[in-house]
Amino acid sequence: MKARIKITLKNGVLDPQGKAIANALGALGFDGIGDVRQGKYVEIELDETDRATAEKTVERMCEQLLANMVIENYSYELEGA
Amino acid sequence: MKARIKITLKNGVLDPQGKAIANALGALGFDGIGDVRQGKYVEIELDETDRATAEKTVERMCEQLLANMVIENYSYELEGA
Repeated sequence: MKARIKITLKNGVLDPQGKAIANALGALGFDGIGDVRQGKYVEIELDETDRATAEKTVERMCEQLLANMVIENYSYELEGA
Repeated sequence: MKARIKITLKNGVLDPQGKAIANALGALGFDGIGDVRQGKYVEIELDETDRATAEKTVERMCEQLLANMVIENYSYELEGA
């Protein structure tokens, strides 16, 4: 089973990387750009075949390691098996 | 319209960040973990309301700025409008 995890900054948390992307896109001539937010994306291959167990495992991984729950949110999809 | 863009390393490109995550998860006691790959995730708010035009714009953004096409792939979803 494969987990596809997105980790994003919470609303209200300053995102300088996102701002830098927005500025760079403006400099390249793209217009009509609003808010830009940058996050992380992680794909994890799991041996687990039971979906409910895999969901719990992924949530624990996010809370213990992948996301900083003070300033970040996570969401994930499971695929296969 | 909101674009949700995932940028991932191409297969075969070494991913030391992914390896570090896999090792850290192992050290935390998670087992049954296979390949881990880390990528980037970008959300861009666009004023554009026409889906076809927005798709072209997002593809140009990825190819010109967001993704390094030599070693990275991108995929995206458009949402709203």
